[in-house]
Amino acid sequence: MALPHVLGVDLGGTNIRVAVLDANGSIGHASRTKTLSEQGPDAVIDRIADLIAAVAAEAGIGADIPVGIASPGPLNPRTGVVHYTPNLPGWRDVPVVSKLEQLTGRKVALANDGNCAALGELRFGSARGCKNLVYLALGTGIGGGVVTEGVLIDGKNGLGAEIGHTLVSIDGPRCTCGSIGCLEAYASGWAIQAEAMKVATTADGDRLRELATDGHIHAGVVATAAAEGHQASIAILERAGRALGASIGSFINMFDPEMIVIGGGVATLGEALMGPARKMIPQYSFVDMRRDVPVVYSSLGGDTGLYGAGALAFMTFD
Amino acid sequence: MALPHVLGVDLGGTNIRVAVLDANGSIGHASRTKTLSEQGPDAVIDRIADLIAAVAAEAGIGADIPVGIASPGPLNPRTGVVHYTPNLPGWRDVPVVSKLEQLTGRKVALANDGNCAALGELRFGSARGCKNLVYLALGTGIGGGVVTEGVLIDGKNGLGAEIGHTLVSIDGPRCTCGSIGCLEAYASGWAIQAEAMKVATTADGDRLRELATDGHIHAGVVATAAAEGHQASIAILERAGRALGASIGSFINMFDPEMIVIGGGVATLGEALMGPARKMIPQYSFVDMRRDVPVVYSSLGGDTGLYGAGALAFMTFD
Repeated sequence: MALPHVLGVDLGGTNIRVAVLDANGSIGHASRTKTLSEQGPDAVIDRIADLIAAVAAEAGIGADIPVGIASPGPLNPRTGVVHYTPNLPGWRDVPVVSKLEQLTGRKVALANDGNCAALGELRFGSARGCKNLVYLALGTGIGGGVVTEGVLIDGKNGLGAEIGHTLVSIDGPRCTCGSIGCLEAYASGWAIQAEAMKVATTADGDRLRELATDGHIHAGVVATAAAEGHQASIAILERAGRALGASIGSFINMFDPEMIVIGGGVATLGEALMGPARKMIPQYSFVDMRRDVPVVYSSLGGDTGLYGAGALAFMTFD
Repeated sequence: MALPHVLGVDLGGTNIRVAVLDANGSIGHASRTKTLSEQGPDAVIDRIADLIAAVAAEAGIGADIPVGIASPGPLNPRTGVVHYTPNLPGWRDVPVVSKLEQLTGRKVALANDGNCAALGELRFGSARGCKNLVYLALGTGIGGGVVTEGVLIDGKNGLGAEIGHTLVSIDGPRCTCGSIGCLEAYASGWAIQAEAMKVATTADGDRLRELATDGHIHAGVVATAAAEGHQASIAILERAGRALGASIGSFINMFDPEMIVIGGGVATLGEALMGPARKMIPQYSFVDMRRDVPVVYSSLGGDTGLYGAGALAFMTFD
């Protein structure tokens, strides 16, 4: 029998969110609580279980309704274990699925937030109806997910597809992951901020310092300055956009997708970033027939995690 | 009922080869004929059908035994159409599968040679028993295939995974495919030869010109000179190997594979190329647990096309 709805959990460094989603992607009852990750994994998992119980009671749904969890990674979706994650300090090989199944009595599926978001876009978002998708989450870092013929690419340990950590230049800048020349080292929030900080120390940086009212010259500040015509800021976004576009071209050669979806906070910079990216794509994808792959923005916005977790639950248990 | 054997066809620019393969990968009856591609697609397809009939008659196998074809691409395995291919001049949107099914009365599956080879390695070769594989065919160009959880990644039009045409450097050399900075522009036979031709015009190139007895300073000549200690040749192979290793690191982040298999003629250069590659892999793959992914040579050698075509037939029809 088709599942009428599922429970989606968006586990983040700051908040835990839980919602009921139906098969059409309507979010019904929803609630949130602070993650309070400093209390350690057991306390966080207890809080997730409590929130699931509260939302389920409020919505009046049965004990047979399963749960999908979007979590920061790296994690192994096959074993249900979160290996560790910068967003949740102190987590090391935490068996999230088995603990939550025990606490809730429900079936639970786990996937990393980038892969969940790809599933969410496919089932409920901009890529609805697609079977072949590359999803890029442009945030402080860069995550994402790839679906080919309806199957999520996640590899031996479920650690793929780390498309933010693929090569833009063999001689490029060092990435926070330790590798060299990753896409994330060019086009992520932190990479844009790092370039802006360099500019900020020069005379060219006056406007950036003025706009950074809270003292942080983040990507949004750069975009505001660029919109005013600030040349150094335009150049920063062009550099990031060029790397993003070249990578998208390379992903098209790799995956032959129907669509590329761009999500995450940095995607809200819009065409200041994506304009330069779009110009590069045809130069880095080689077969004419691939050059018209649509590159669109996510339609799920701040609820991407919930939609992704719900899509994961439907795909796993329905 | 399990298929006892299949017919494999290796369609190349020079030769057509047909063989009977059993489920364990033993090649039974086999034969070959010239492709004579200048006679055009219909004549070539007739020759394939004739050779299939001859081999089947010789082996005494029934009309119900299906056929797998490994062909140069780009092609669409879902429609059975070869779009065009540099190796077979004049081919344009040739419906190979429907024509061959009509001529032979057999079921026919088609895939590009790189993807077939990945399936062949998985079923019969170095990656036997794996479910997650990246296969690289290092030849004049670079092709390959990727399998994730047993599924071949080939995308919307079946054109993936063109892993030879993924990014090594956004500021890299122009590739024959028209893009910039592809792996093929660094580590393929033609790229190594192009670097060697530059050296050959200098005083450093004396030894290369001496060794090129047929006038062609191909990759094998560079390897011979490098083995003698010729510094410029060692540098050429190091440059190619470094790009190959960085790409493999990036593929590990992307696909989380169990194994990387290296095949194709350029792979026979061995550790002169692969040594520098192996050193780079940990610098370009970011999670410690991925750094021990084995990188091994193909065990199928010159019969890769036949094994791959056979594996395709078993996977499609068994």
